[in-house]
Amino acid sequence: MHFTSETSANGVIERNFTLGEITGVLWSPASRTVGAPLLLSGHSGGMHKKAPGLVAGALHCVTTYGYTVAAIDAPGHGDRPRNTQDRRWGDAIHRARAAGEPIAPIVIDYNASLAERAVPEWQATLDALQALPEIGADAPVGYGGMTLGVVTGLMLATVEPRIAALSIGAVFVDDALIETARKITVPIEYRIPWDDEYIDRRAGLALFDAFGSREKTLHAHPGGYTQVPEYERDSSARFFARHLRRDGATPA
Amino acid sequence: MHFTSETSANGVIERNFTLGEITGVLWSPASRTVGAPLLLSGHSGGMHKKAPGLVAGALHCVTTYGYTVAAIDAPGHGDRPRNTQDRRWGDAIHRARAAGEPIAPIVIDYNASLAERAVPEWQATLDALQALPEIGADAPVGYGGMTLGVVTGLMLATVEPRIAALSIGAVFVDDALIETARKITVPIEYRIPWDDEYIDRRAGLALFDAFGSREKTLHAHPGGYTQVPEYERDSSARFFARHLRRDGATPA
Repeated sequence: MHFTSETSANGVIERNFTLGEITGVLWSPASRTVGAPLLLSGHSGGMHKKAPGLVAGALHCVTTYGYTVAAIDAPGHGDRPRNTQDRRWGDAIHRARAAGEPIAPIVIDYNASLAERAVPEWQATLDALQALPEIGADAPVGYGGMTLGVVTGLMLATVEPRIAALSIGAVFVDDALIETARKITVPIEYRIPWDDEYIDRRAGLALFDAFGSREKTLHAHPGGYTQVPEYERDSSARFFARHLRRDGATPA
Repeated sequence: MHFTSETSANGVIERNFTLGEITGVLWSPASRTVGAPLLLSGHSGGMHKKAPGLVAGALHCVTTYGYTVAAIDAPGHGDRPRNTQDRRWGDAIHRARAAGEPIAPIVIDYNASLAERAVPEWQATLDALQALPEIGADAPVGYGGMTLGVVTGLMLATVEPRIAALSIGAVFVDDALIETARKITVPIEYRIPWDDEYIDRRAGLALFDAFGSREKTLHAHPGGYTQVPEYERDSSARFFARHLRRDGATPA
């Protein structure tokens, strides 16, 4: 893991890093705390490691809860080159949207391909993060994400026992994702949009139903998937506090 | 409003009161704050103003958030006499449950009758509470409830503009309640059990869909309606903080 920049503002240290082909960013509290929860944050399809919503959530987690948060660009996203096949998928989504045709089938295939490639990258990133003295191997690890970041996180959690809790948002649901969900056993918080133009409400409820976790909670909010209410940001941070903090304390 | 007892423990003053035939209880912070939110708390059918879950939620709201919380016995519940018709309904529910027959139709009729009688009682109670110098007419008012307390609260909110926010749990849903829900416009938080023996999941989702509120949030949790996770208690208090606190601040 090679840090390429370090800046600091409002008590948060932001470091960009590369790890082989992976480009990522790490946000840490200026008052570094060994053993504080580490959150992995997966961006939406078409976005990148510094998507505005992701950054807002990360900064809230660092400043209010003292967590460390890491995000990496998905393959072909952000600072990473796009291959020919990824470019074709992107074009197909763009064309379908412009023509008013369903984008879900294309997005589902594209996401599955990206997530499959991203899972070993997240594992390598996690190895490198845990090797940092200010994080360490004992820091409890959670994962949060939206759309593409959800597919990646669920696939990651089925093969990676270090992921101890998941807080996820909207996602296109297909049979493969339902099968993946059945294998999830860690605590999960799942936010769904109630009135989304593209993402079906019933499919979202079916996904919640499929999660194998004993501790699972569903939050539905009005509007589309980009209209996640701001209070859900704090709800997610508190969810991680409940499940990842060693002292068991949720900040009052 | 006539206070019949006053005790104090752990920073909370508990006062029992009567108001005509109504029997109630008021929990206030020992450090009384004029203008702090006032929460009205409606108990489940068959329970009473000091149902364990209700008391736990009330004490959490008073000690952690400085709210004042009031609860009254529904007609024929707690310290209040039961009339012949109420006794018949109670017996019918008991028999149906013992025989493994559906209780929903009986509960729905019984709840509607109780709620209709409870609405003017809550309004009279609210008048009396707002006349207390330590509460005052300007305190923002929220309402929370379970089952019977939900039916009562929704009916109350449609006729009582002083109710500024609602945080409710599981309830049997019929067409009349759906119609009532359409008239609700204040912010609402609604918790549903995902696997309840008696309360249908789809009916719960239909009720959420029906709420006319622009700001509404649905929380689903595994298990039955009595198994509300403890963290939902704080979520509810924070919901009220978002919508009732004059300074707009949610305690961190």
